[in-house]
Amino acid sequence: MKPTSGILASILDDVRPLIGQGKVADYIPALAKVPNSKLGIAVYTNQGEVFTAGDADEGFSIQSISKALSLTLAMGLYQPEEIWCRVGKEPSGQAFNSLIQLEVEQGIPRNPFINAGAIVVADMLSSRLSAPRQRLLEFARQLSGEPQIVYDKVVAASEMMHSDRNAAIAYLMRSFGNFHNDVLPVLNNYFHACALKMSCVELAKTFSYLANKGVSVHTGEEVITPIQSKQVNALLATCGLYDGAGEFAYRVGMPGKSGVGGGIVAIVPGEMTIAVWSPELDASGNSLAGTRALELLAQRIGRSIF
Amino acid sequence: MKPTSGILASILDDVRPLIGQGKVADYIPALAKVPNSKLGIAVYTNQGEVFTAGDADEGFSIQSISKALSLTLAMGLYQPEEIWCRVGKEPSGQAFNSLIQLEVEQGIPRNPFINAGAIVVADMLSSRLSAPRQRLLEFARQLSGEPQIVYDKVVAASEMMHSDRNAAIAYLMRSFGNFHNDVLPVLNNYFHACALKMSCVELAKTFSYLANKGVSVHTGEEVITPIQSKQVNALLATCGLYDGAGEFAYRVGMPGKSGVGGGIVAIVPGEMTIAVWSPELDASGNSLAGTRALELLAQRIGRSIF
Amino acid sequence: MKPTSGILASILDDVRPLIGQGKVADYIPALAKVPNSKLGIAVYTNQGEVFTAGDADEGFSIQSISKALSLTLAMGLYQPEEIWCRVGKEPSGQAFNSLIQLEVEQGIPRNPFINAGAIVVADMLSSRLSAPRQRLLEFARQLSGEPQIVYDKVVAASEMMHSDRNAAIAYLMRSFGNFHNDVLPVLNNYFHACALKMSCVELAKTFSYLANKGVSVHTGEEVITPIQSKQVNALLATCGLYDGAGEFAYRVGMPGKSGVGGGIVAIVPGEMTIAVWSPELDASGNSLAGTRALELLAQRIGRSIF
Amino acid sequence: MKPTSGILASILDDVRPLIGQGKVADYIPALAKVPNSKLGIAVYTNQGEVFTAGDADEGFSIQSISKALSLTLAMGLYQPEEIWCRVGKEPSGQAFNSLIQLEVEQGIPRNPFINAGAIVVADMLSSRLSAPRQRLLEFARQLSGEPQIVYDKVVAASEMMHSDRNAAIAYLMRSFGNFHNDVLPVLNNYFHACALKMSCVELAKTFSYLANKGVSVHTGEEVITPIQSKQVNALLATCGLYDGAGEFAYRVGMPGKSGVGGGIVAIVPGEMTIAVWSPELDASGNSLAGTRALELLAQRIGRSIF
Repeated sequence: MKPTSGILASILDDVRPLIGQGKVADYIPALAKVPNSKLGIAVYTNQGEVFTAGDADEGFSIQSISKALSLTLAMGLYQPEEIWCRVGKEPSGQAFNSLIQLEVEQGIPRNPFINAGAIVVADMLSSRLSAPRQRLLEFARQLSGEPQIVYDKVVAASEMMHSDRNAAIAYLMRSFGNFHNDVLPVLNNYFHACALKMSCVELAKTFSYLANKGVSVHTGEEVITPIQSKQVNALLATCGLYDGAGEFAYRVGMPGKSGVGGGIVAIVPGEMTIAVWSPELDASGNSLAGTRALELLAQRIGRSIF
Repeated sequence: MKPTSGILASILDDVRPLIGQGKVADYIPALAKVPNSKLGIAVYTNQGEVFTAGDADEGFSIQSISKALSLTLAMGLYQPEEIWCRVGKEPSGQAFNSLIQLEVEQGIPRNPFINAGAIVVADMLSSRLSAPRQRLLEFARQLSGEPQIVYDKVVAASEMMHSDRNAAIAYLMRSFGNFHNDVLPVLNNYFHACALKMSCVELAKTFSYLANKGVSVHTGEEVITPIQSKQVNALLATCGLYDGAGEFAYRVGMPGKSGVGGGIVAIVPGEMTIAVWSPELDASGNSLAGTRALELLAQRIGRSIF
Repeated sequence: MKPTSGILASILDDVRPLIGQGKVADYIPALAKVPNSKLGIAVYTNQGEVFTAGDADEGFSIQSISKALSLTLAMGLYQPEEIWCRVGKEPSGQAFNSLIQLEVEQGIPRNPFINAGAIVVADMLSSRLSAPRQRLLEFARQLSGEPQIVYDKVVAASEMMHSDRNAAIAYLMRSFGNFHNDVLPVLNNYFHACALKMSCVELAKTFSYLANKGVSVHTGEEVITPIQSKQVNALLATCGLYDGAGEFAYRVGMPGKSGVGGGIVAIVPGEMTIAVWSPELDASGNSLAGTRALELLAQRIGRSIF
Repeated sequence: MKPTSGILASILDDVRPLIGQGKVADYIPALAKVPNSKLGIAVYTNQGEVFTAGDADEGFSIQSISKALSLTLAMGLYQPEEIWCRVGKEPSGQAFNSLIQLEVEQGIPRNPFINAGAIVVADMLSSRLSAPRQRLLEFARQLSGEPQIVYDKVVAASEMMHSDRNAAIAYLMRSFGNFHNDVLPVLNNYFHACALKMSCVELAKTFSYLANKGVSVHTGEEVITPIQSKQVNALLATCGLYDGAGEFAYRVGMPGKSGVGGGIVAIVPGEMTIAVWSPELDASGNSLAGTRALELLAQRIGRSIF
C-alpha cells in the first residue's frame, strides 16, 4: 500500500497518547523548552511526492541526525580506507557518550554515529575543508532544496557551554593520535551541525539520496555512489539509533538515524524517505512516539527491509 | 541477475586465494582438524531451486548458526514478552563469550546470538520441552528435509569438555535469577545444538522460512509468522555476526548468522537463502572466505536489503 | 595507653548508637536472622592478656575472615612463587564478587581476600591436603586453643544453596586454567571455611601470630615465619577490607580483615590482636559499628601503624 | 639496626645489577634522556641525621611524588569533608591514567594519587590560592630547606605538549561538576608540580613531617596535624604506588610515593624518611631498582610498619 497523508494523520492520532510517557532532552536549556506536544511526519517518495501530517513543516534541532550528513560529506572527501582506519563500523553496545570503550579500543570510536565517531568525522572535515561549517550548511540547503535553512545559534552556543564531555572525548582521541586539529574549533563545528534547524519535510528531502541509490530525488544529483548509499544504510541499520538499533530494526525494520531533538529519519531503499518528530525520548534517547509512528507506518504500508 | 551454479563456482574461484589468511577454530580438537581447504556455497530460492558450488553437500559443524534455529523454536513455545524480558535485542559491542556486560547488565544477555543469550534460550527450551535435544534434531531434519541429519557426538563431547567458560556464563545468569534449570544438562543440550552436522544445501533449505515470510519453502509449512520472520531477520542483521555485524552489513548487506565451524547463512528476504562454508575465520570469528563470497555474490546478483 | 576492659566497654557504649544505620547481610537466611544488636570486642595482647567487652564470647559466622586463615595454611604448603603466580597482591578497586576484572586479567584474581582469590586458595588447599575441610577446622581449633570450634552446618548449607555467583567465578578461572579441581567440592570447602563459628575472643587468639612475628601467642608455635607474617599484614592493610581498605587505613590505621558476618580482626604488630563484632554492615560490606569501635580504640590507646 | 652510609652504599651495590631490566619513562623527551645509570639514596632521621649513597644530591624530576605535597597543601586549605567528597580514599585497581573508573564513578577519582585525583587537588589549590604554582614552590623550598629548588621548565613545557590524556580526564570530571576552574591553567600548574626538580636528600627532608607526626624535622614547624600525618601515610600505603601498592607493601612495608622520574619516597613513621632514585621503571611505573633498594633497606635495618 502507498503512504497517504490520510494514513499519516491516522498514525499520528494513534501515537499521540504516548506523549507524556517519554522525556524531552534537557541537558541544554534550548532543547528542554521545546513543547513536548509537537508531532509531525513526512514521507518523500523516490517519485518526488510529499505526504505529511502534523507539524511536518516546523523546524527543530536535528541533533545527531546531522551525523549521517557529515559522514556523507566526508565520504566525498576521503578514500574509504582513510575513513575506516579512524572510525569503526560496529555497534557500540554502550551509551552514545561513553569514554570506556574508547579507552579500551585505543581512541578508535566504534562507529561514526556515536559522539566520538562523529567528532572524528568533524575533525576530518576540518582537515580538508577551508570552511567546514559553511560547507555543511550549503550541503543541507542544497539537498533539502531549502536555502533558508540555518544553524540555530542559541542551540549551538548552548551546546558549546555544555561541551565538557565531548571535549573529554576529543582529548582522549587526541592522546591516541586520532584527532588532528584544535579541539574547541572542531567541537564548535560539530555543535553547529547538531544545531541545524530543519523540518520533517526538509529532512525527508535531504536524505532522499539514501533511498535512491545515492542520487538526490530533489536535485537529481549523485550525492554518493550507489554502493556508498548501501554502505551508509547498513551503518544506519546497525548503529543509527544509539543503543536501541536492535530494537528499532526489530520493530520498524528500516535503516534510520535519530537525534535527541526528537527527530528520526528512516529509509525504505528504492522507495521513500521518512522523517518524524516528537520531542519526548525513550530510555535509549530515541523519540518515543516517533519510533512508534514508524513502526505503525511500516505495518500499514507493508514495508520493511527484512 | 539470478544466481546460477556458474556464478557460484566463479565466486569460489575468486575467494579461494584467501584461504591461508584466516584461522581455523582450534578451541576444541574436533574443529581444529577440519581441512582449511573446504569451500562450498548453496543458494536455495523461494521457488525451490537449488544452486551449488564446491563442497556444498558436505556436512560440517554448524555451531552458532544453531542459535537462530533454537530461537525460532523458542518463539513457537513462548510469548514474545516472556522471551524478551530474559534476553535483549541489542548488539553487544563485545566478544561473544564475555561476562563483563552480563555482570553490568545483571544477568540479562544483550541478544540471543551471543553465547549467554543462546544459553538462556536453551534454558527456556529445557523448561518447556520434555526432550529438547531430540526436538531440535527433529526440527532440523524436518526443515531441511533431510532425516539423516545427526549431532556430531565427538564435537558435542569435546565441547562439553571445554565448557568452563559457558558454565561460568550460565552460573552468573543463575545468580541473577535468569537461568532456571540445572546448568550442566542445559549446557549439554546447547553443545549438541552447536554440534549439528549439516551441509550448505541443508542449511539453505532449513532457513528458507526466513526468506519466505516464515513459511518453509521445502515443506510449505508456516514455521513462524511473517512478522516473527522479519523480527528474526532484524536480529540477525544487527547481532548475527558476533562483533562483526556492522562490517557484514556494510559489505554484504543481508541478515546472516555465522558459526565458528566456518559456516554462514544469509537471507535475501522474499527471494533466497544462501549458505557458505569455509573453515578459516577472521578476527571476529566469522568465515573469512565465506564473508567475501557473500560480498561478491551480493554484488554480482545485485542483491542487498539496503 | 594500654587497652583495658573499661576502655573497651566505654567504646562499645559510644558506638552502640550507630546500630540501625547499617544493614545486616541478608543474602542467606542464616545470616539475615542474626540480631543486629550484637556487639562485642576482644583484645589479646602479645603478653597473653585478654580484655573484652559486650558479646565478646558469643560465636558468630566469621565469613571472609577465614580467607586470612586459609591463606596462612596455604603459605605453609606452597612456595611463594607457586601462590603468587595464581593470585595477585593488589587491591581490586571493585566489588568483592565481581567477574569483570577477573575476565580482563585472564583468570588471575587480584588478591587472596576477594572471593575469586580465596576460591583459588581453596583450590590450592584441595590439591595438597587429603581432607582440607577437616584440616582447616583443626587449624582454627589449635590456634584459638578452643577445641569446640565447629562449622555452622546451617550456614554452610545455606551458602551452598546460593553458590551460583561463586560457581561462575570458579568456572571462569577454570576456563583460564587457574582452577584445578572439581568446582563444587572446592566451593563446599570454601563455604565451610566461611561458616566457621567463632567468638571475638577466639578470633583474637587465633590471629595473634600476625601481631607476634608469626608465633602464636597462645601456643608459642611458629605458624608462619616473621617475614610471612609481615607479608600477610601488608596484604591485609591493602586488600583486607573489600573495597574499603583505604578508608579503613585512613580511619583505623591497622591491618585488618572483615567478614559479612560483622566481624573484623585488626592487628597492632608487636603488640596485640583485636576482634570486634557488630552485624550491621556499611556500603562496602564492613561492620559499621565495628569499624568505628576500632577507630576509637586506635585513638584512645594511641596505636596506628602510621 | 641504624641505617648508615655504609649500609646504603652496600645496598646500592646490590641493586645496581638490576639496571637494564626496567624502562626509563619515555612519554616525554625530557624524561627519556635521563641516564638510566643514575642511582641514589638518602635517609633523613627524625633526629636530623642525613645518610646518603650514590647520586643522592643530584636533582631529578619528582613527578608524581609531588602529588603527596599538593595534597598536604590542600589539607591545610580545606576541611576534610570538602576534600573527600571530591576525591576518594580507595586504591583504583587500574592504570594511573585510566578514564574508565572515572566515568563509572561519575567523575569522583578513586584517590588523590592517581592522575585524576591529583588534578582535582590542583583544581582545589587553584580555587583557594592566588598563585598556586608559586605557593607550591615556596612550600617545597621551605620544607626542604633548599631555596634553590626550581621547576624544570623544559619538563613542564614538554608535559604540557603531551597533555591530551590529562585534559581528557579534567574535562570528564568537569562534565560531572567535579572540576571548577579552566582546564589548561590548572593542568599547567599540575605539570609544574610534576616538574619540580629535587634530589633524594631534598625529598627526604621535605617529607620528614610524615615520619614525625606532621612536624618538619628540618624546620620544627607543624606542617599538618599528627592525625593528618597518619592519614596521609595511610593513603600512601594503600594508593601511593600506582597499581603496585600491594606489592610494595608486601616487599617493603612502608608508606611511599613514587614518580615516573624514578624517585620513591618512603616513610618509617616515628623514625625516618627515605628517598631513592633510579630512573628505570617496572611494569607498574615504579622505580625497579629503587623498590629493591627499599626492600633491602627494610630487611637490613629491620624496619616495617607490619
